[in-house]
Amino acid sequence: MSGNSFGSLFCVTSFGESHGPALGCVIDGCPPGLEITAADIQVELDRRKPGMSRHVTQRRESDTVEILSGVFEGRTTGTPIALLIRNEDQRSKDYGNIATTFRPGHADYTYWQKYGIRDYRGGGRSSARETAVRVAAGAVARKWLLQRYGVSVRGWMAQLGDIEIPWQDETAIDGNPFFAPNAAIVPQLESYMDALRKSGDSVGAKITVIARGVPVGWGDPVYGRLDADIAYAMMGINAVKAVEIGAGFDVVTQKGSQHGDELTPDGFLTNHAGGVLGGISTGQDVLVNMAVKPTSSLRLPRRSIDLAGQPVMVETHGRHDPCVGIRATPIAEAMLALVLINAALHHRAQCADVSCPTPKIPAQAGHKSA
Amino acid sequence: MSGNSFGSLFCVTSFGESHGPALGCVIDGCPPGLEITAADIQVELDRRKPGMSRHVTQRRESDTVEILSGVFEGRTTGTPIALLIRNEDQRSKDYGNIATTFRPGHADYTYWQKYGIRDYRGGGRSSARETAVRVAAGAVARKWLLQRYGVSVRGWMAQLGDIEIPWQDETAIDGNPFFAPNAAIVPQLESYMDALRKSGDSVGAKITVIARGVPVGWGDPVYGRLDADIAYAMMGINAVKAVEIGAGFDVVTQKGSQHGDELTPDGFLTNHAGGVLGGISTGQDVLVNMAVKPTSSLRLPRRSIDLAGQPVMVETHGRHDPCVGIRATPIAEAMLALVLINAALHHRAQCADVSCPTPKIPAQAGHKSA
Amino acid sequence: MSGNSFGSLFCVTSFGESHGPALGCVIDGCPPGLEITAADIQVELDRRKPGMSRHVTQRRESDTVEILSGVFEGRTTGTPIALLIRNEDQRSKDYGNIATTFRPGHADYTYWQKYGIRDYRGGGRSSARETAVRVAAGAVARKWLLQRYGVSVRGWMAQLGDIEIPWQDETAIDGNPFFAPNAAIVPQLESYMDALRKSGDSVGAKITVIARGVPVGWGDPVYGRLDADIAYAMMGINAVKAVEIGAGFDVVTQKGSQHGDELTPDGFLTNHAGGVLGGISTGQDVLVNMAVKPTSSLRLPRRSIDLAGQPVMVETHGRHDPCVGIRATPIAEAMLALVLINAALHHRAQCADVSCPTPKIPAQAGHKSA
Amino acid sequence: MSGNSFGSLFCVTSFGESHGPALGCVIDGCPPGLEITAADIQVELDRRKPGMSRHVTQRRESDTVEILSGVFEGRTTGTPIALLIRNEDQRSKDYGNIATTFRPGHADYTYWQKYGIRDYRGGGRSSARETAVRVAAGAVARKWLLQRYGVSVRGWMAQLGDIEIPWQDETAIDGNPFFAPNAAIVPQLESYMDALRKSGDSVGAKITVIARGVPVGWGDPVYGRLDADIAYAMMGINAVKAVEIGAGFDVVTQKGSQHGDELTPDGFLTNHAGGVLGGISTGQDVLVNMAVKPTSSLRLPRRSIDLAGQPVMVETHGRHDPCVGIRATPIAEAMLALVLINAALHHRAQCADVSCPTPKIPAQAGHKSA
Repeated sequence: MSGNSFGSLFCVTSFGESHGPALGCVIDGCPPGLEITAADIQVELDRRKPGMSRHVTQRRESDTVEILSGVFEGRTTGTPIALLIRNEDQRSKDYGNIATTFRPGHADYTYWQKYGIRDYRGGGRSSARETAVRVAAGAVARKWLLQRYGVSVRGWMAQLGDIEIPWQDETAIDGNPFFAPNAAIVPQLESYMDALRKSGDSVGAKITVIARGVPVGWGDPVYGRLDADIAYAMMGINAVKAVEIGAGFDVVTQKGSQHGDELTPDGFLTNHAGGVLGGISTGQDVLVNMAVKPTSSLRLPRRSIDLAGQPVMVETHGRHDPCVGIRATPIAEAMLALVLINAALHHRAQCADVSCPTPKIPAQAGHKSA
Repeated sequence: MSGNSFGSLFCVTSFGESHGPALGCVIDGCPPGLEITAADIQVELDRRKPGMSRHVTQRRESDTVEILSGVFEGRTTGTPIALLIRNEDQRSKDYGNIATTFRPGHADYTYWQKYGIRDYRGGGRSSARETAVRVAAGAVARKWLLQRYGVSVRGWMAQLGDIEIPWQDETAIDGNPFFAPNAAIVPQLESYMDALRKSGDSVGAKITVIARGVPVGWGDPVYGRLDADIAYAMMGINAVKAVEIGAGFDVVTQKGSQHGDELTPDGFLTNHAGGVLGGISTGQDVLVNMAVKPTSSLRLPRRSIDLAGQPVMVETHGRHDPCVGIRATPIAEAMLALVLINAALHHRAQCADVSCPTPKIPAQAGHKSA
Repeated sequence: MSGNSFGSLFCVTSFGESHGPALGCVIDGCPPGLEITAADIQVELDRRKPGMSRHVTQRRESDTVEILSGVFEGRTTGTPIALLIRNEDQRSKDYGNIATTFRPGHADYTYWQKYGIRDYRGGGRSSARETAVRVAAGAVARKWLLQRYGVSVRGWMAQLGDIEIPWQDETAIDGNPFFAPNAAIVPQLESYMDALRKSGDSVGAKITVIARGVPVGWGDPVYGRLDADIAYAMMGINAVKAVEIGAGFDVVTQKGSQHGDELTPDGFLTNHAGGVLGGISTGQDVLVNMAVKPTSSLRLPRRSIDLAGQPVMVETHGRHDPCVGIRATPIAEAMLALVLINAALHHRAQCADVSCPTPKIPAQAGHKSA
Repeated sequence: MSGNSFGSLFCVTSFGESHGPALGCVIDGCPPGLEITAADIQVELDRRKPGMSRHVTQRRESDTVEILSGVFEGRTTGTPIALLIRNEDQRSKDYGNIATTFRPGHADYTYWQKYGIRDYRGGGRSSARETAVRVAAGAVARKWLLQRYGVSVRGWMAQLGDIEIPWQDETAIDGNPFFAPNAAIVPQLESYMDALRKSGDSVGAKITVIARGVPVGWGDPVYGRLDADIAYAMMGINAVKAVEIGAGFDVVTQKGSQHGDELTPDGFLTNHAGGVLGGISTGQDVLVNMAVKPTSSLRLPRRSIDLAGQPVMVETHGRHDPCVGIRATPIAEAMLALVLINAALHHRAQCADVSCPTPKIPAQAGHKSA
């Protein structure tokens, strides 16, 4: 509960700093028998990897993952799965100035005040580099969800700064560095980013992620709700400042007669709920939006203070993402998968549905499992 | 971890159904020495209580709280504080039809599918009536936060349906049934609600809540972030579908040079971060927005199914809030307070700062530290 | 995690003081569909109830339990089950002297030092009266274990002071106030206790408890072991100072060739392991011994100090058990049941055995579920 | 909560198999500012290391620890501390026969039945090799306890098979391979072990561990008791079958007038309680005994079954400890330290005592609290 573990039954404990020897995690609670290889994890890591286009940080990291435990003869054993990613490209000199000043909008100020000591190299623990660990752990969760439950998770960029990205074609998502579901708009995004980079500024983005195939019944009222867990997971991603489920903020102006998803024998007619009612999955797609703030490391001079509390102007000339949102899609997918696998395992432990676990229980007349 | 507890060091475990004998909670981890009486809790419960105006449910509940344990001679002892609220006005006949059908947009469908059995009377466990427990527990947290840390929490309605409520005057908030920070707009809100009620429909709302006086350093990276915990707490409130911290979704179009809050020796110049950077409090006000969906219980006929999966038209004629957002303000305040006291206690456990707040408490005569 | 909850998936949160208004608990995580009534719980409470013989405290409590939530139409709904036991017979005058002095061997000293305030009436929270809550929660767990898994839990007194109680007949256990599995020895135990009571002194006891029908595979290595959880549960019972699993301290002098339980196609030949190997159940009976210290409240004068740290002689003339071990058997049974139901639910969440939960996984050749 | 984490505020998550690439752990919650180096940890690892005498396994492991994160410029930063120990000497051929049969008294049977798959090489996850991780994590805890609270932990062997080891001299403990507090008895222990080894059999042992300097007030009633946490920690060590606090099983025959430790203005007169009353530390030494069973890997032929359930005779000819108790002392010390640091941090979070220890830590130049 000290802040670096995520999940309870499928618990991921993360470690590592941006410029330390390594990052990694321990996954405790992965059921045995899942076929998993480093390659399965690597493919997801590569989607988030730095240096994949000119629009992201040019730091060169292979992000090669090593499985240290928990897998035997290609299958999980039910024991902890430790994943290790060595850091390779640490140019600490890039960050010298950060040691004595605080970047406006960056966590180095709060870490410093909280702990009285910080590893300032590349942002240390607060660096988005930690998200590689989430993607790695998420890859294990995603494989389990797909194989055992047929649940898949998919994310994309919905908006980059002022540019809304109209949905066009899911196959386009992995065909461009922005994870934009629209091939035609990519040139516009690229020129937008080129100009932004030249300006030395950064910008925010909006990411959408959905889960398909989630059965009805996952999530635990009244506090451990599926939507609450999703909000926790998404808001816990570096730079995220807002989360919506389903209709999100649109519900403020909606009428009940408009918002409430009507039911028919063939299922729901709409999905304003975003696949969650009362904190429990409805069986529809789980729909999530999140807002990613602009990077706080800029070439532009900004007012700040130094360790002594004296005023200084801060410019950051290291290697940074001008829009951290560009690499946020695989991270959002991973976090949603981690929420879902925990919900799945918890549901299995306690639900009374005979189609789920052992105990046979007489359901009330009409219950689908009766 | 089975979904009905909130917080770890200051842990609230909730119980009770809308039409069962009682609702209540156990608070485990409240530090000893806090002066607290049932009256301190009652004053907060009365702010959320049903039947306080014609714009909310007319169910008559005194919501009288009884302290069953953990308080001795008017002060907390460090042992669990159990709070009990007996249900008084259960007209189960109002809900007969709910037993065999599902309200569009309501949790009765998902509870049913998850558990195979549900207490359908008044929504059972999924009823917003459970939020009385949150307000009661929050009252204890709020008193502690104010006395020990000088931290106060305040919420208000920012929008009702299409009506945006311009900020005018904090003192106005408790002067009207909407918790609107603007006395002049109240007549407009009342006529809006009167028309809505007549139409048999319901509507959503937007609630803002802030915390003042939060010291820098609360919150635990990288997953147990203060903002992640807030998102979890707010999205976990019945009917909430979206949460923002600080600039929220506005960050999507913001530039880094605009978003990042500059620092001077006198403090921050802006607060786009909403008081949280890297998951840790900055010392500025913590700013939160949330969207509350329209009530799903309507007098208007809607398509749904019954227990046998057959199509039916559902109308709900019980006593319901046409806008659950109207009573959401005290609940949002309570949840924010519960997040903050947990962050405060956790920070105290682990921070190395010798100035970390140590509660000053009058010990009983003879105690060694007196 | 603040000390008053037991278990994770089947989590019992306890509250209440010896002379406060009430004791009780909230059970979060009980699967839905279990038929349970207050009477099912009362029968277990009555086994532990005070005043059942002249050998225990004469405090008169009916220990009547009220179910406040989580049960609908006679079956659990999967929502929290709150249990309430009102205190009826509080003669606080009995305890006046305790307010200003400390009983040697009693927790009133440590509570006082820890919290700086304590409810001294009848020992407040440290009173063994809290164990009524454990028995009540255990009754729910025991019914589930028996109905779903055929697992039963049984305890008895193995030794009272110097008197070892030879095993004779299980049916004898509930036929005497000592839970002695030997009717012939009861007169000896009674005269022993009569003499002890007259002397104003108290004495310890040894309790044995076993679980039958536990399937192989419950328990989570390497820290959340079934035996570790049992040790935690038993040592957490008031006055318990030692716990053994299986051969216990006898293993110190055993040879490996003697201790290791040999296997045959028909099962194990012995059970020195006490039903647990590597923290996981073996399928044999789970065998536990525990030592209960003598009551610390005595009529005999003893040296102590008062709140001012001054020397005093303390005599306690209230109503106390001269041997708390006499009522410890139902408590030990309840705690073992609570450990087992948590292990059962956790196993169900994560095991790969096709005879347990959904996912079908190819087991290695020879696995019993292949 | 999936079994491989220990502690909540100072949480150690362990991973690794006996013959996998590596073992290690992540420590989450270590307060910032503690000076720690790999050498500080290595010195404790070397005490437990195999191959240090002819009386333990001859497997050659340097057990070299690498700190992967959480330490910057020689001090903890408050972020997770990851420790890695690579396996070096895996002669899997030694264990070929183990793949298809079960050793009587060994966990390979229960792992197999629980998971349906296991890493059989060297016992995989169930190997005592995992205890290296506990010692490493414990070394960090021990340094913190000593520096911040003046608390020290010390263990020794109290009995080896039939040979009781009379206490003589603490300085003797680290002067012999048995951790015997008595130099004179070492030759007798050595000849006993030489004969045992020749016989191909194994034997149990009794270990005592104490903590000195623990302040009054640590531990959380009523379930999270200090003694319950200790019992959990000790029973969770491989091969441990019994745990005592203070007088332990002797309390069964003790009278209250004999057991209850009398108090004077100068402190307690005795310590039958073993430093814990009502689950809270008394300020006296914390006294713990534990029983370690004989190794289950023997050269002597024993009856067992194979994967097909057919009867087989099993002999184990790998490299094993003929008495795992010989190396158990540093492990017991480590686990007690881990219990205590968690109790210390939790106490600090919630106690109301203004004198509650606040760690004094040298902040980096410029930190506001410096």
